[in-house]
Amino acid sequence: MTYLDEILKSRRDTRHFTEDLVPDAVLEKALQAGHWAPSVGLTDATKYYLIRSAEMKKAIKGLFLDYDEKAIALTDDEQQKQAYKALKLEAIEEAPLGLVICYDRSVLNNFTIGTVGSNEAVKFSSVCAAQNIWLSLTEQGYSMGWVSILNYYQFKQLLGLPENMEPLGYFCVGKPATDYDNQPMLQQLNWKQKQEIPLVEEITVLHESKVEKVFFDTKKEIDSAAFANVLQHKIDQKTKPTGSLGILEVLAKQIGMVFQTLEPKIIKPNLVVFAADHGIANHGVSTYPQDVTRQMVNNFLIGGAAINVFCKQNKIQLAIVDAGVNYDFPMNTDLISAKIGKGTHSFLHGAAMSKTEVELCFMKGSEIVASIAKTGSNCIGFGEMGIGNTATASVLMSIILELPIQDCVGKGTGVNDEQLIQKISILKKCIANYDGSDDLDSKLAYFGGFEIMQMVGGMLQAKQDNMLILVDGFICSVAFLIAFKKNPSIIKNAIFCHSSAEQGHQKILDCLGVRSLLQLDLRLGEGTGCAIAFPIIESAVAFINNMASFESAGVSSREL
Amino acid sequence: MTYLDEILKSRRDTRHFTEDLVPDAVLEKALQAGHWAPSVGLTDATKYYLIRSAEMKKAIKGLFLDYDEKAIALTDDEQQKQAYKALKLEAIEEAPLGLVICYDRSVLNNFTIGTVGSNEAVKFSSVCAAQNIWLSLTEQGYSMGWVSILNYYQFKQLLGLPENMEPLGYFCVGKPATDYDNQPMLQQLNWKQKQEIPLVEEITVLHESKVEKVFFDTKKEIDSAAFANVLQHKIDQKTKPTGSLGILEVLAKQIGMVFQTLEPKIIKPNLVVFAADHGIANHGVSTYPQDVTRQMVNNFLIGGAAINVFCKQNKIQLAIVDAGVNYDFPMNTDLISAKIGKGTHSFLHGAAMSKTEVELCFMKGSEIVASIAKTGSNCIGFGEMGIGNTATASVLMSIILELPIQDCVGKGTGVNDEQLIQKISILKKCIANYDGSDDLDSKLAYFGGFEIMQMVGGMLQAKQDNMLILVDGFICSVAFLIAFKKNPSIIKNAIFCHSSAEQGHQKILDCLGVRSLLQLDLRLGEGTGCAIAFPIIESAVAFINNMASFESAGVSSREL
Repeated sequence: MTYLDEILKSRRDTRHFTEDLVPDAVLEKALQAGHWAPSVGLTDATKYYLIRSAEMKKAIKGLFLDYDEKAIALTDDEQQKQAYKALKLEAIEEAPLGLVICYDRSVLNNFTIGTVGSNEAVKFSSVCAAQNIWLSLTEQGYSMGWVSILNYYQFKQLLGLPENMEPLGYFCVGKPATDYDNQPMLQQLNWKQKQEIPLVEEITVLHESKVEKVFFDTKKEIDSAAFANVLQHKIDQKTKPTGSLGILEVLAKQIGMVFQTLEPKIIKPNLVVFAADHGIANHGVSTYPQDVTRQMVNNFLIGGAAINVFCKQNKIQLAIVDAGVNYDFPMNTDLISAKIGKGTHSFLHGAAMSKTEVELCFMKGSEIVASIAKTGSNCIGFGEMGIGNTATASVLMSIILELPIQDCVGKGTGVNDEQLIQKISILKKCIANYDGSDDLDSKLAYFGGFEIMQMVGGMLQAKQDNMLILVDGFICSVAFLIAFKKNPSIIKNAIFCHSSAEQGHQKILDCLGVRSLLQLDLRLGEGTGCAIAFPIIESAVAFINNMASFESAGVSSREL
Repeated sequence: MTYLDEILKSRRDTRHFTEDLVPDAVLEKALQAGHWAPSVGLTDATKYYLIRSAEMKKAIKGLFLDYDEKAIALTDDEQQKQAYKALKLEAIEEAPLGLVICYDRSVLNNFTIGTVGSNEAVKFSSVCAAQNIWLSLTEQGYSMGWVSILNYYQFKQLLGLPENMEPLGYFCVGKPATDYDNQPMLQQLNWKQKQEIPLVEEITVLHESKVEKVFFDTKKEIDSAAFANVLQHKIDQKTKPTGSLGILEVLAKQIGMVFQTLEPKIIKPNLVVFAADHGIANHGVSTYPQDVTRQMVNNFLIGGAAINVFCKQNKIQLAIVDAGVNYDFPMNTDLISAKIGKGTHSFLHGAAMSKTEVELCFMKGSEIVASIAKTGSNCIGFGEMGIGNTATASVLMSIILELPIQDCVGKGTGVNDEQLIQKISILKKCIANYDGSDDLDSKLAYFGGFEIMQMVGGMLQAKQDNMLILVDGFICSVAFLIAFKKNPSIIKNAIFCHSSAEQGHQKILDCLGVRSLLQLDLRLGEGTGCAIAFPIIESAVAFINNMASFESAGVSSREL
């Protein structure tokens, strides 16, 4: 065993420290070791914060205790719960020095080598630095304990870190009081045994990547003028003045026509939120950092977002799709993985995705909706989440409707006037830079978003399966517009749920010659407009099925 | 400089290799070094795949080339573009060995220590392993190059990796052909200079978390401006951009203010339809015969009307009041008898009712609502039925708002243009014929309707009982206008559910400075607007109670 091996092997995640202070020279040497770690694209994005104040440590310990309790609640196994409680997992207050290793994600605002496949490379450099520091401390007779059981958001607040600075955790630094019998503490305490040897496997077979092209045949439309008359007659015979239920009557007729029945029913309504990241988000088109896409997906999964609340309220089955978020989600969630990539590329200077990826999006979206249709559902709402996707949607709209970009851009979820001018200026540049061919699919690849394209595929499939298609706000309507270009008869199945406050939205609705059910100034996305409007659609179905007719109720229908 | 320091410092991201193979012993030793890296919760989630096949390397190189081209497109700066192109960023085909370091995110399916704050801890363990391997290879005279310029999803596909296995990248392993003058290649080539020293800063000031925990005793008198702020803060802390739920946010705040609570609940929602006949109906102001009022009351009682269907759909308790229908109903029904007379008199030549009858109406309406409030209900909608009551309501509006009658008259539930002119002409005459005193109550008696006046009494009582008051369309809003004249603070409790197609309605809403929730072209009355809008009111309550806050969900609220 070499000297290096000795250090590597004896490095411990330490939770027991002596009271010895950490000399400046030791710390300096360790941080220098961190500085020798790889730094993707030489970004130098790692930054270190030191904490010595007892007050600060106490506050951080408080955060740990909060989350430790949360962790305990994650297991139902009483024995495991007790075993967990007995573990000492931190030494925040005892360790003489606190170190917070951060990465600065604002480096991604500039051209950075090595981040095109995944911007996680930046944080990985900082993790390598952490490991170097750990090794250096070990060599010097000191050690470190990595505390990750924290609400990182509150942690950042306590430290007063800027929004762009992301901590890897809180690291307790000091002189170790034990070496845990030269093994990980969790092993010493029989929590678990570490594997004897690393897991290694050679791969020799190349797996061909396959993208199937999805074809949507436009089914024969039934000549249903006669049926339309029968349906209208039924509506007119209800005990109310003709037309007095306004849009509900139009809706009831549409739904009856889609399902070709006088007694339409909505069965197993579903709503699917497609989430993805957008390269253009790095160019300041949104006030929110890209990471919020991931955070919101997690929020969807724990049921805390607006769309969760509204779907639950209105008994709509909700599914969340990772169409291409710039983050790897764990497996143990209900998230549907349909990832095309970790976010699109910025379309400022090049294509957001390849044409193959567009096809892949159509295919994935179509598969997801087809599987929902197979459960017997006949009604599906579409929602989206993706920082920067109003910018993407605006450009797509501008391209498709041949309108100036400024007529298509809105403030998204909260840019101010100045930022809006900036947003328009960037998007103008993006459009001007396009030198690809003039066909729709080339433009979709160049300016598209993974979630938007998956919605397109999903909508076309929903039409194929003759489902009611609930269209949400601006971004969802842009996806619908693309689907409409591919199959104009899809409009018969579409219900436009909400006119968003984004100025472009009304233009799309006008262009499609449709009117939305609600105007509630929503500008949230997520499919919230669909979920909130859903009871109104049910009202339309309820009245055509359940109201008495003039005849059955003995009410006079005729005028004086 | 220690031996460890020498290794840490000389570790290079290598893109130039000799043709020497990597002996098994070297690889084994390096992977063992990786295995000594930290493993969060002892999950052993790191797995290694080896690639030696030239065919596989070629396919992976293809992925690199795709993404490298995309990377080039990300910069506008022509000089930077050229400099980038000149860089050798990988050695996929030349390096004798390919290593793919992965983490298995399925470990998160089980209870895992250290992942409650962020499940990224799992991948960070694998990154530490990568760094250990790098150091071990360096010590042994070999090196590694981390290739992250790949579409990770296609990469996974090519390798045939299971869904749960996530690669950190492709690592080229071999004997280095250069040490880049003992510095990073990007520095040697003057792409960028690495910082001399690490960035370190001590944090001494504790930033207090901004979440206020305020307790309110609803039974005490409360400074309502302060409470409004707390309520608004709660709304703003929900995981959504500020204001992005539009009218729902306004509604949630209103409801919270009415009930003086941060957790408003709607309890036992009720809807009362007041029915009565109007003497003016005999003068051709409606296309329906007066008897339709009775017929529709019967229809309500058998559950066949629109309001029955919508109340049932949305679980609203429905009550029907005979405020003065020109018919004697049998006793064995659920009809609430509050009959003032068998319809009002025509106000063409005299008063519709006496001032005593107006008082009686207020009393009856108030009693009915008080008895509903006693059941614990805190939300009541008002609806009406009465052939001729749009004429009555128009005249009342004209009198109260001092607007010309033609600005207040609409087509009711179905008169044509000619009939409309006739209707206006009759109502003008009615108003011209008035020679009573100028006080409101005298005018209410002269031009009133039994159901309208009972709604006024009911609304005032609902305010008294601090209920939410759901206001339906035109006629209901005229009743509200009268209640507002008597107690302007009633507006705090009122939710305007639907803007009717009656032209006068929008004028009343404007005059009250309010906006309705729905615009669905309903012109039916019966309280249908309230019943259809009710789920939206529930949505407002649902989001304020059930959505996660930025803090609880760990979502970033602030701008970059």
